[in-house]
Amino acid sequence: MKLIIVNGPNLNLLGKRETDIYGAMSFEDYLEGLRKDFPQISLSYFQSNSEGALVDKIHEVGFEVDGIIINGAGYSHTSVALTDALAAVPASAVEVHISNVYKREDFRHHSYLTKNCDGLITGLGLNGYKLAINYFIDKQ
Amino acid sequence: MKLIIVNGPNLNLLGKRETDIYGAMSFEDYLEGLRKDFPQISLSYFQSNSEGALVDKIHEVGFEVDGIIINGAGYSHTSVALTDALAAVPASAVEVHISNVYKREDFRHHSYLTKNCDGLITGLGLNGYKLAINYFIDKQ
Amino acid sequence: MKLIIVNGPNLNLLGKRETDIYGAMSFEDYLEGLRKDFPQISLSYFQSNSEGALVDKIHEVGFEVDGIIINGAGYSHTSVALTDALAAVPASAVEVHISNVYKREDFRHHSYLTKNCDGLITGLGLNGYKLAINYFIDKQ
Amino acid sequence: MKLIIVNGPNLNLLGKRETDIYGAMSFEDYLEGLRKDFPQISLSYFQSNSEGALVDKIHEVGFEVDGIIINGAGYSHTSVALTDALAAVPASAVEVHISNVYKREDFRHHSYLTKNCDGLITGLGLNGYKLAINYFIDKQ
Amino acid sequence: MKLIIVNGPNLNLLGKRETDIYGAMSFEDYLEGLRKDFPQISLSYFQSNSEGALVDKIHEVGFEVDGIIINGAGYSHTSVALTDALAAVPASAVEVHISNVYKREDFRHHSYLTKNCDGLITGLGLNGYKLAINYFIDKQ
Amino acid sequence: MKLIIVNGPNLNLLGKRETDIYGAMSFEDYLEGLRKDFPQISLSYFQSNSEGALVDKIHEVGFEVDGIIINGAGYSHTSVALTDALAAVPASAVEVHISNVYKREDFRHHSYLTKNCDGLITGLGLNGYKLAINYFIDKQ
Amino acid sequence: MKLIIVNGPNLNLLGKRETDIYGAMSFEDYLEGLRKDFPQISLSYFQSNSEGALVDKIHEVGFEVDGIIINGAGYSHTSVALTDALAAVPASAVEVHISNVYKREDFRHHSYLTKNCDGLITGLGLNGYKLAINYFIDKQ
Amino acid sequence: MKLIIVNGPNLNLLGKRETDIYGAMSFEDYLEGLRKDFPQISLSYFQSNSEGALVDKIHEVGFEVDGIIINGAGYSHTSVALTDALAAVPASAVEVHISNVYKREDFRHHSYLTKNCDGLITGLGLNGYKLAINYFIDKQ
Amino acid sequence: MKLIIVNGPNLNLLGKRETDIYGAMSFEDYLEGLRKDFPQISLSYFQSNSEGALVDKIHEVGFEVDGIIINGAGYSHTSVALTDALAAVPASAVEVHISNVYKREDFRHHSYLTKNCDGLITGLGLNGYKLAINYFIDKQ
Amino acid sequence: MKLIIVNGPNLNLLGKRETDIYGAMSFEDYLEGLRKDFPQISLSYFQSNSEGALVDKIHEVGFEVDGIIINGAGYSHTSVALTDALAAVPASAVEVHISNVYKREDFRHHSYLTKNCDGLITGLGLNGYKLAINYFIDKQ
Amino acid sequence: MKLIIVNGPNLNLLGKRETDIYGAMSFEDYLEGLRKDFPQISLSYFQSNSEGALVDKIHEVGFEVDGIIINGAGYSHTSVALTDALAAVPASAVEVHISNVYKREDFRHHSYLTKNCDGLITGLGLNGYKLAINYFIDKQ
Amino acid sequence: MKLIIVNGPNLNLLGKRETDIYGAMSFEDYLEGLRKDFPQISLSYFQSNSEGALVDKIHEVGFEVDGIIINGAGYSHTSVALTDALAAVPASAVEVHISNVYKREDFRHHSYLTKNCDGLITGLGLNGYKLAINYFIDKQ
Repeated sequence: MKLIIVNGPNLNLLGKRETDIYGAMSFEDYLEGLRKDFPQISLSYFQSNSEGALVDKIHEVGFEVDGIIINGAGYSHTSVALTDALAAVPASAVEVHISNVYKREDFRHHSYLTKNCDGLITGLGLNGYKLAINYFIDKQ
Repeated sequence: MKLIIVNGPNLNLLGKRETDIYGAMSFEDYLEGLRKDFPQISLSYFQSNSEGALVDKIHEVGFEVDGIIINGAGYSHTSVALTDALAAVPASAVEVHISNVYKREDFRHHSYLTKNCDGLITGLGLNGYKLAINYFIDKQ
Repeated sequence: MKLIIVNGPNLNLLGKRETDIYGAMSFEDYLEGLRKDFPQISLSYFQSNSEGALVDKIHEVGFEVDGIIINGAGYSHTSVALTDALAAVPASAVEVHISNVYKREDFRHHSYLTKNCDGLITGLGLNGYKLAINYFIDKQ
Repeated sequence: MKLIIVNGPNLNLLGKRETDIYGAMSFEDYLEGLRKDFPQISLSYFQSNSEGALVDKIHEVGFEVDGIIINGAGYSHTSVALTDALAAVPASAVEVHISNVYKREDFRHHSYLTKNCDGLITGLGLNGYKLAINYFIDKQ
Repeated sequence: MKLIIVNGPNLNLLGKRETDIYGAMSFEDYLEGLRKDFPQISLSYFQSNSEGALVDKIHEVGFEVDGIIINGAGYSHTSVALTDALAAVPASAVEVHISNVYKREDFRHHSYLTKNCDGLITGLGLNGYKLAINYFIDKQ
Repeated sequence: MKLIIVNGPNLNLLGKRETDIYGAMSFEDYLEGLRKDFPQISLSYFQSNSEGALVDKIHEVGFEVDGIIINGAGYSHTSVALTDALAAVPASAVEVHISNVYKREDFRHHSYLTKNCDGLITGLGLNGYKLAINYFIDKQ
Repeated sequence: MKLIIVNGPNLNLLGKRETDIYGAMSFEDYLEGLRKDFPQISLSYFQSNSEGALVDKIHEVGFEVDGIIINGAGYSHTSVALTDALAAVPASAVEVHISNVYKREDFRHHSYLTKNCDGLITGLGLNGYKLAINYFIDKQ
Repeated sequence: MKLIIVNGPNLNLLGKRETDIYGAMSFEDYLEGLRKDFPQISLSYFQSNSEGALVDKIHEVGFEVDGIIINGAGYSHTSVALTDALAAVPASAVEVHISNVYKREDFRHHSYLTKNCDGLITGLGLNGYKLAINYFIDKQ
Repeated sequence: MKLIIVNGPNLNLLGKRETDIYGAMSFEDYLEGLRKDFPQISLSYFQSNSEGALVDKIHEVGFEVDGIIINGAGYSHTSVALTDALAAVPASAVEVHISNVYKREDFRHHSYLTKNCDGLITGLGLNGYKLAINYFIDKQ
Repeated sequence: MKLIIVNGPNLNLLGKRETDIYGAMSFEDYLEGLRKDFPQISLSYFQSNSEGALVDKIHEVGFEVDGIIINGAGYSHTSVALTDALAAVPASAVEVHISNVYKREDFRHHSYLTKNCDGLITGLGLNGYKLAINYFIDKQ
Repeated sequence: MKLIIVNGPNLNLLGKRETDIYGAMSFEDYLEGLRKDFPQISLSYFQSNSEGALVDKIHEVGFEVDGIIINGAGYSHTSVALTDALAAVPASAVEVHISNVYKREDFRHHSYLTKNCDGLITGLGLNGYKLAINYFIDKQ
Repeated sequence: MKLIIVNGPNLNLLGKRETDIYGAMSFEDYLEGLRKDFPQISLSYFQSNSEGALVDKIHEVGFEVDGIIINGAGYSHTSVALTDALAAVPASAVEVHISNVYKREDFRHHSYLTKNCDGLITGLGLNGYKLAINYFIDKQ
């Protein structure tokens, strides 16, 4: 099974940025652990701060992976382009947020992405990505 | 580890009701499978169509279980009493919805419960409960 | 033909409460008249002030009656649980309000129930129940 | 007893227009049946696509009929002139909609007319007119 | 000086309709008095319950009268067509309402017409028409 | 007959301020003309930039004058205190605005004062005050 | 191919009214040109200031023309009756506005008609009608 | 004088729950003190987490007590049924909240109950109940 | 203990103004009674119709009294300056309204002051002031 | 005449994506046809999924082409940067959408771009681009 | 060059009030420093808690100073009178807030004053006044 | 001291674009002047039309400069990604707009960036950048 994790803006700073909200582990370290936990999964990873690059990547992989795990970060709340990209490709997706967006500012309570995903996991920390992988495995 | 699944109104009809949205398996059958998957967990279960009974149950168990997996169903969108109950007890909670509430009516897009839970899993089917158990196990 | 009238909160006080709005006849007296008018109908009756009890009753009867005549009273305007119950059972329903809710406070102008009923009769007094029975007879 | 049915715009196409919503019977055929069912009622009928013509008719008949059964159709949602006409005449009125307006677009959920009528019957098909006649008979 | 009074829907019932709000004098009687008070003015009068007829009349007179005194009644609150007609003709206009619309329902607080008139007189009874004539005389 | 004109903030600059909107005549000059036009009226005048002083003045005169002509200027749109003062005294009032407030910013479209006045004259220039005096004379 | 252009209120003043917005050519002159440009099209024309007459016309032609080019003018923003008429007939429609409604008042940004038309052309001047004819030709 | 204190959901946890907001004293202990302070009052007490049970209790006591002191807690903000119950019985009521609801989430700023009570005491701690008793004593 | 009652605009007319809402007793008479009831309290009093004078007074007394009992009247709903003054001084405050503001116009349902007070007493008549004094005594 | 078509995000997938909405032809194939139809036009083409790249392109060509045909796709509804770019360059523009955005989600009903374009063509399929070229030819 | 600083309500408490937000320096001390820094400027100062006094002062100085530096404090968010005063005088103005109003309550995010000022400086502490002086010097 | 000016979309056209709003000087020319005025400051500069490139730059410099002067232009009103970037880095920021955004369209009145900056300078022309530098110098 081929899965991809697509991370949006500012998530490259994970471990360096607002560690009270996002924790002190970098995503690269976390990813290494994930790959060990799921040796049977071909798990690729992409991060960009550019909305257009995220759309390009979804076009590129969306016709060949089995699932997209997407954390749109700031673009989740503002990007029609990104949700249209998810709708345009056959791969199904799960949206993940590390923090519980419903405990934060009002503008984070709405995500354009959710309605074009199978579902949403929010507030369960980095573990959310792991649970999303579990979801795709069980769904097979 | 002691966990409880608390299901709100109409979920007793699972498997009989709107099977295109919720699937054809009854919750009791699903629960049996869960208990087999997690023999190390003491997993109790409560369902009620009464808001007050759900509040009573959270009071009763909220000082002794390690985690509450709550699917407030219709009360998620209307009940201050229920979210106040979650805030009042020391156990942490995860909110689960079987369907993707963001694909449905607008009034299902807001849940009073989420901000008093660790996080939310929505749209991943009955599997959402399983993932929530995994979350509590990993969090230990 | 089996029909049930389901009355929501405070309707047990009919004849005693705000008689300028609701009239001076108790519902029990009115019901007796209805049963005389429609001897061919098996007409049962349920009233509760509890949202959960109303949901329970709809589950209980909704798979066997031919029609539900529901006056959700105060719960009409606030209960997702109740409208989900109506959606969950095969029996069709007609919503009735005794007073014209559009002449009263704004929060009474919206009912969660209507969209899961065949239709709505409001403002035609106790007679609304009778007309609803006529509707089910004609629909047969 | 003298009653009038006043039908608003596009209802002249009944039986020809969107038959999945409104059914395949023309209003004239239905009316013939109604008159047979209620031989004791002097039942007149008026339809117009013009808001002004509807106001004129209500002025003309509103001081002499015992009741107005009004289906304002599209004007229900936009016409202050029409509801002012209902308020201006002594005849009481009942509002009827054939379809359940609460299952349709949001702008159909509000009717200017309702607060100047005794009440509203919506979603019960052409039968709504018959029930409205029954209401006026019982009210006598 | 040529002026015209243009009255909208239901104002033909003046003196017969809701006399607590609008008084007991018919507009025709009032108009007779006005013409006596202002013998130097060529004062014409038009009333219609039809939005289109009101637009037609404004087109007809709007290129030749010195002023339009318009009481759009119910159409004031709903008609873009009517305000566009006022904007389309060279004659200036004054909007008049007999009752104080700000003491009544919210939907009467906004008039599409006002911004295409010189100004508005509301709540000063039938006298509002007289004051509007005075305005046009003083403005000369 | 005793009348008072009460002018709110910035109206002391009339003739000096934004003359394209308000004209080039000072209010004192205009007032002199008014007094000549209505020798039979005891016409007093008060202007203040202070909300409290306007309230004080209404208390002082509101039990003895026959009418208050009030142009609340900026306070019209923001002052509950001022409209409460008008409601608290027996004198009736007419609200006047020189410019057509409906051609200006949205926040000028609502006045707290109107509902506690007999009515409103707006957009008819300084003449609005004269028309208001005419209203009180005719009303006698 | 049979097409009809249906123009709403105030468009009879084209060439006389607000020429900075709508240009100085009358619609009749423009229409003559159109007919020369498209000799193969049977192009009829209807204009009315009456909402009801527009509905009547759509009923009359909507079962026999191949396409309706509708400029609802002021009624576009307020008429449910008109959009219901478009939905009620089998002919497809294209909505045209001469001016760019999105550069004008907010209430012109919404048209009830658009969702019952194939599409919308706005802001391209009288040429919009020509482009709509081209659309119907290409669609054949 | 007979008074009753009716406490809504989660108030049974007083002293155990969010003690920074609600203090550390249980309501039972506080009640004992109240009864000592007011020996002349027959003071009964009812708490429930069930909306229906609260409605039932108000029906039961509302025809015989002199006053109801109601803290609807979470139901204050969501329950039409409860405020309808208060309106349905002759006893007058005072609404009490322990915390200052206006310092908390927006959804706590509105209570359905207040308009059917004599008044509201909020933010004055458990003392609010005592002040409400004083109110009823003084009112006698 | 030193307390001050600060009354806002129009409360100087108490006993003279809208006696159906506010009662027929002047505040001065009521105050005399209060001082007799609480001989141990140094109770001062200030009333002004001027927002600025109320702010000045709060600055003057707010560093030396033990409590402020404030009825902002009309300014409660519109004054950021006044609530900022309460926040700026160390004395704690209780907000009082004589009438039940939730039974009146919508704009009276929000008070800027409440969140900078310990709490609010509304609708309990002049007795509200007495209860506020009791609150400060009990709080000592 | 030099024209450019600028297509926004996801339009590179045309013919592959949601073919029920957008059709099965790729834009490149369509473009080839367009160029054949208009040999006299120098027609360039640009597509990007990046908002910044679209802004850059408009800067680059906006000072030298005669017209821009822009389909902002998802960015139409969210991009102030893009509409500012259109306003910043001298070339005039026409906005095109392939689907009828008014039949789709609410957030697609508003486009930031329209007010900085001559006009808008929506819902007329790929033909919309052709009509826009016709517009520029006729406008010459 | 003549400049004036006009400070609104509660700013007289600077250095004494909420020092975590506004700092511990009194405005008088700060002003002394400013005058030393800008010996070439005739810098006057006015503070009042009264909206009317602020309007009066702007009238008094607005025809003779070169610039007004205004911190309307609480009145910024509520006063039409004050912004009308700024519009009424020829002097240009700069609005200053000491704290970053966008980090505080929502009602502080809108200022009536800004649109009648050259611009706004907010959140830069007392230094904001100094920068505003620099602006006027550079603008000369 | 190291500062950076970060300019958002379309600001590369300064001097060429809408010179009535933004003036006729290019930013490069202005920058040269700034560097001469502040020889002690290491002042770098970055402009991009791409949201992602702006985020990247803030990440790159935000851990090493002493201050960021950011004019997000169109992205100010739409970009959560950009404000999250500002929150993610230790450097403090000042937001600058050249024009007074409060005199322009409503959608320019809200900036996502402000709450993650020390403050905002708007409407003071290019000078706003200079004042921001002064702020950072004084803050040292």
